[in-house]
Amino acid sequence: MRAFEKIVSIPLKGRILNKPRSDGITMVIDTGLGLNAAKDLVQTASEYIDIIKLAFGTSRLIQENIVKKKIKLYNEYEIDVMPGGTFLEVAFAQGKLIDYLTEAKKLGFTAIEVSDGTISISDEDRSKIIKEAYNQGFKVLAEVGKKMKEEDLTGEEIAEGIKRDLELGVFKVIIESREAGKGIGFYDESGGIIEQKLEVAIKGIDVKNILFEAPHKNQQVYFIKRFGPNVNLGNIQPNEVIPLEALRQGLRADTLKLVYK
Amino acid sequence: MRAFEKIVSIPLKGRILNKPRSDGITMVIDTGLGLNAAKDLVQTASEYIDIIKLAFGTSRLIQENIVKKKIKLYNEYEIDVMPGGTFLEVAFAQGKLIDYLTEAKKLGFTAIEVSDGTISISDEDRSKIIKEAYNQGFKVLAEVGKKMKEEDLTGEEIAEGIKRDLELGVFKVIIESREAGKGIGFYDESGGIIEQKLEVAIKGIDVKNILFEAPHKNQQVYFIKRFGPNVNLGNIQPNEVIPLEALRQGLRADTLKLVYK
Amino acid sequence: MRAFEKIVSIPLKGRILNKPRSDGITMVIDTGLGLNAAKDLVQTASEYIDIIKLAFGTSRLIQENIVKKKIKLYNEYEIDVMPGGTFLEVAFAQGKLIDYLTEAKKLGFTAIEVSDGTISISDEDRSKIIKEAYNQGFKVLAEVGKKMKEEDLTGEEIAEGIKRDLELGVFKVIIESREAGKGIGFYDESGGIIEQKLEVAIKGIDVKNILFEAPHKNQQVYFIKRFGPNVNLGNIQPNEVIPLEALRQGLRADTLKLVYK
Repeated sequence: MRAFEKIVSIPLKGRILNKPRSDGITMVIDTGLGLNAAKDLVQTASEYIDIIKLAFGTSRLIQENIVKKKIKLYNEYEIDVMPGGTFLEVAFAQGKLIDYLTEAKKLGFTAIEVSDGTISISDEDRSKIIKEAYNQGFKVLAEVGKKMKEEDLTGEEIAEGIKRDLELGVFKVIIESREAGKGIGFYDESGGIIEQKLEVAIKGIDVKNILFEAPHKNQQVYFIKRFGPNVNLGNIQPNEVIPLEALRQGLRADTLKLVYK
Repeated sequence: MRAFEKIVSIPLKGRILNKPRSDGITMVIDTGLGLNAAKDLVQTASEYIDIIKLAFGTSRLIQENIVKKKIKLYNEYEIDVMPGGTFLEVAFAQGKLIDYLTEAKKLGFTAIEVSDGTISISDEDRSKIIKEAYNQGFKVLAEVGKKMKEEDLTGEEIAEGIKRDLELGVFKVIIESREAGKGIGFYDESGGIIEQKLEVAIKGIDVKNILFEAPHKNQQVYFIKRFGPNVNLGNIQPNEVIPLEALRQGLRADTLKLVYK
Repeated sequence: MRAFEKIVSIPLKGRILNKPRSDGITMVIDTGLGLNAAKDLVQTASEYIDIIKLAFGTSRLIQENIVKKKIKLYNEYEIDVMPGGTFLEVAFAQGKLIDYLTEAKKLGFTAIEVSDGTISISDEDRSKIIKEAYNQGFKVLAEVGKKMKEEDLTGEEIAEGIKRDLELGVFKVIIESREAGKGIGFYDESGGIIEQKLEVAIKGIDVKNILFEAPHKNQQVYFIKRFGPNVNLGNIQPNEVIPLEALRQGLRADTLKLVYK
């Protein structure tokens, strides 16, 4: 039972509270948490976390036994765990895709992010990678977008990428905005939302299929106000999971204002 | 005994080092710490923390047994614990004030923040809430200010709010600046101090009765230089307690410069 | 063994992976970590940490037994530990240099940072302090630069300071940029690199002797691209050690782009 659960009801109605959820996903970015911090995270916030990404190539840097223990802990709390998409890109470029997926499975990962944010991958190869990941039993998320500003996609290109990946049956299409959430994808240099680009990119698409990387609070507030408390959000820092959930449930001024004027 | 205590004396004199303090309060904002992090916090910094706020509605999101354990731990280190003011506003709006205070008491909270940052509350109701909280044995802090920029109070309105609440005998009046400390209250969009507004707001008021929310270092430095090492400061992030204390004691360049030129 | 070590090779070649290293130093700034967080840090990242600085005067604020335990833990993982330079300046100004070094030794510190960022120290005294620290068996790092913007050194002054300290045989010369990394040393108000000043300061100097304080990612990327994966970097936050190492090894887009176009 949550504290005050019998006394105070959730102000912003509609938030899906039971896992597994297919909408209302919160994806957390873990860039190297130790086991004490990982235990703190699941103990306080596991109900509000659906996926944890061991970001970019961080897994490659940490001792295998620690990585395994952390994934096991997250899995015990019904959280999917995936390596960062950049790491898959590296494995693919080194001709090690199959070995990479096999090893990921062995380590306990349950989801795979397929991206081409840094290394170019043809649509044909992308499709093969996604199918291979499915065959090995992973939940598959595809990411659309580039990591370097000079390669940033237009709204139209994002729209095409989303449609291409949804036809392949991925669980969600992630829209790239990096850990920093500034100057890329739907965000300007200060992290503000480029609304016109967003409109073009999602026109005619069911937003339930999209997972927006939204590391900053103003971005989270924007998406919750625009698409409701169950919008799928990612690249949430571990210490921002509870604050984000407070936004989703109207327990913080920014969204509580939707209930009380 | 603190490390180097017999070798190096505190550069900036006058800091009150013994608890309980009525001046020199540091109020920490906890937005969802786990027990390992909470233990770390009290182990390194409990001497420098007077109040911990379980911010906004975070208590409502966390399992009751974890909330209870955390409050118990903080209490053992002579730290008052209060829920966020926004959460009280929600409880009040739902007609559950008495139940809310009773439950808070049961969970171990020792202080209550009474605010109207998001939901409008009449002065009469505010006064009743404060009295009720006193009757139930809480330390009461009142907060003046609004959370949304478009409702931001003027310096004159802050001054009036402070006087109104001091007449009700609250422990401290907190000046709202949100967790972010930007674009609200005494702070401009980049977190700089709006000195003229501050002057108007505190004219004729003993600043010992005020607790300034000051999450950013430039704000902490400003208040320490202006009002001395025992100014009351709040919304301090857990990992900023020791750095703030270093400022209060002149163990960091910004305030050490007051001692050595 | 690191996770995926047999499957995926390091993209950016040349990173020195074995400790002790004399190049490729990562110096971490610890502003008050508790023991759980300190354990997390060494468990995930000890291979990538050469020095931990207990920043400014934080040691003076924490109970001696906790400081001792933390230093012991770091030492067990072959990490040098030093107090912040500001704290040595205070001890020197109070006429307690020898006692300070003796006490530091007793507490387990293995390195000493000699700076004059806040308090003026003559070149003669600086030289004496460095020699005394050597005599007591410490690894000695000297820091060039001022902490307050109005005293900021020119590129020429930094160059002179570097040469002066290298002649005294210090392990590395640190270039001051504070914890914030903005508006001081080689960084402008937004943390961007002032390249012309940097050129002047390091002209004719072997950059292996320099340790750049570089708390922000754009700064780390700049130095790695400019000087390679083994550039010496400091004032890295504990939770940024793994992300920095990912940059050094090309496991993150910004430097992976050096390998794949």
